Amino acid sequence: MAGLRCMGCTRRYPLQDMPTGCPECAGRGTPASLEVVYGALPKTLQPASSGYRWGAWLPYTQGISLAEGNTPCMDLPRLARELGVRQLSAKVEAMNPTGSHKDRMSAQGINRALDVGARTVVLASSGNAAVSAAVYCAVAGLRCEVATYRQMPEPYVRALSRFGAKRVLFDRSRDRWEHVRRQVESEGAFALTNYHVPAIGSSVFCVEAYRAVALECAADACLPDHIIVPTARGDLLWGLHSGLRDLLAAGLIPHMPKLWAVEPFPRLSRVLAGAPLQSEFEGLTAQSSIAGSTVTLQQELAVRQSGGGAVVVNDAEAAKGVSQLAAQGLWVELCAGAGVGALASLRRQGDIAPSDHALLLLTARGDRDSFHVAQ
Amino acid sequence: MAGLRCMGCTRRYPLQDMPTGCPECAGRGTPASLEVVYGALPKTLQPASSGYRWGAWLPYTQGISLAEGNTPCMDLPRLARELGVRQLSAKVEAMNPTGSHKDRMSAQGINRALDVGARTVVLASSGNAAVSAAVYCAVAGLRCEVATYRQMPEPYVRALSRFGAKRVLFDRSRDRWEHVRRQVESEGAFALTNYHVPAIGSSVFCVEAYRAVALECAADACLPDHIIVPTARGDLLWGLHSGLRDLLAAGLIPHMPKLWAVEPFPRLSRVLAGAPLQSEFEGLTAQSSIAGSTVTLQQELAVRQSGGGAVVVNDAEAAKGVSQLAAQGLWVELCAGAGVGALASLRRQGDIAPSDHALLLLTARGDRDSFHVAQ
Ligand SMILES: [Zn+2]
Ligand SMILES: [Zn+2]
Repeated sequence: MAGLRCMGCTRRYPLQDMPTGCPECAGRGTPASLEVVYGALPKTLQPASSGYRWGAWLPYTQGISLAEGNTPCMDLPRLARELGVRQLSAKVEAMNPTGSHKDRMSAQGINRALDVGARTVVLASSGNAAVSAAVYCAVAGLRCEVATYRQMPEPYVRALSRFGAKRVLFDRSRDRWEHVRRQVESEGAFALTNYHVPAIGSSVFCVEAYRAVALECAADACLPDHIIVPTARGDLLWGLHSGLRDLLAAGLIPHMPKLWAVEPFPRLSRVLAGAPLQSEFEGLTAQSSIAGSTVTLQQELAVRQSGGGAVVVNDAEAAKGVSQLAAQGLWVELCAGAGVGALASLRRQGDIAPSDHALLLLTARGDRDSFHVAQ
Repeated sequence: MAGLRCMGCTRRYPLQDMPTGCPECAGRGTPASLEVVYGALPKTLQPASSGYRWGAWLPYTQGISLAEGNTPCMDLPRLARELGVRQLSAKVEAMNPTGSHKDRMSAQGINRALDVGARTVVLASSGNAAVSAAVYCAVAGLRCEVATYRQMPEPYVRALSRFGAKRVLFDRSRDRWEHVRRQVESEGAFALTNYHVPAIGSSVFCVEAYRAVALECAADACLPDHIIVPTARGDLLWGLHSGLRDLLAAGLIPHMPKLWAVEPFPRLSRVLAGAPLQSEFEGLTAQSSIAGSTVTLQQELAVRQSGGGAVVVNDAEAAKGVSQLAAQGLWVELCAGAGVGALASLRRQGDIAPSDHALLLLTARGDRDSFHVAQ
């Protein structure tokens, strides 16, 4: 790592933790995340022989690991026919060690926490990220504190208890963020997730972890025309974009797939139509992993620069997608099911053509979800 | 596949389904499973470029798949020090698509069911195998019928419901087996699991699936001195033995690891001490995946021929093992935790030396287990 660069104003900073993002951009009321500037990236798609498989493209080349990543790109020919596309693949992030893509960010993020000598890791999460952080902290011997909601589903509560993480309960999202801020500013805790308002992404060391998804797709020769990504604040979306961008620059992939953000109610959609990024976008949804009322610069940049966009999928359409994926043997969380609805919607609008290849990011396992489907 | 061979009398049979095992041996009151005789096995450890990675060593080289297998061999240096062995590895079968090693048997078994034109798959299971079969049957378009207990834990019930499998409820184990027999003999269903008394293993096409575990260990250069396997009727134990035996014969591994069967109360231990294999061995345990009152020839042969044995680990010791593994980031079912207790026990007895390398088979995820640990 050669340093950090602001996604907004491109200003360079030395390598450090900047949990509230670029101070220049924040000062102008348009907060922006940092990204890592890498010294030299590999010229080939050769996985590392030790440490992290794609460590040469990540902040930490080796460190704590529970065999996260390297998830399969599964081909779904029946669903492709049903939805009217030439090819449909699914990146099964549900097969990560704790059942979600968050394990990628935990591995890199916990390495950073160890690196800076933190004793406590803190994050705001209602589910997958909390469980993942709890497990990785247990391995690292770090305290884990999760700012969450009272109504956290029981499977997550049980997991946090199993791994000795502390739950701190709140009613409102912003109160969770305030708690994270206090822990960082007064107690020296390391924050995995954002606590800044207006919102930015998670710790840069966490977000960069998702670059490996792009590397794995390229190495598995699963480079689609479109990638459909359930999105709250766009960590996964940006990491994917960042990895693909560098692969394209290195001549290791022939084109940039369009990235499509799936959201449960209009947020990014409204920003792309002209609403200020820093607005509050209220909405109710059972898609708990992608709930929230904020939009971040990183998610806007990822979809704009790739030529994609945002797609709204309501809970009923998401539940239908969960059932369609179950018929392929894949039990995923509600927002991952929404990806199927997004694809159907993009086909109807003509944004995805019958001759195209689409990839669904199946972000997490469905068996911990609190929503129930009538049989 | 060139045919089948009886594990007991070595008699050869043409390739077919023999759900009650070798008729010769059954007639003598000593029922025995069949194993597959392969025409020609590979001379190298080269994974296949299409179909199943280790398909050349399995009944079906390609077919239905949800990316099962290829699970990590994780190194656990801290636990190795704690338990006093040079090296300790864990084969994390919990990372299979539905969370257990049973996905390996489902893939091969469902291919067989499709091959013989069955419309319904039936099995007796109280958990992992049921969920796995339900998912693979959903993908294959086959009906799935699970003979199980009234008190099946809710996460399994929810999964069976999600994938449209039928639950048929019984109070006693033998009644479940009788149901499976009726479905096979009167309705033409394909049985994945045994229904014969005295017991044999599951369908030969299922058991052979576990040979891939041996192949993966060899390919990952994770060839230990000892392998510790939670065991009910020994499907996994035999598959592992069979794979290792063929690898040794081909000169692809330098020695045969000792296989140790972990059991919740004395069954195989008593057989190895002279009790008749066909006895009933009663006992109570919360280790539901390895409960049951029977011993099979396949499990006896696997431990005897490898120079291993049987180790009894009670539920309290198993729960302690679950906690020790959780400290390494691994949440496993109760009987997989028992593997840690077994290793401690074998060290105390001197069966495993401080200079040895041991491998734990972590058979399934722990978050569906109905046992709770006081915090
Ligand atoms: Zn800036
Ligand atoms: Zn025989």
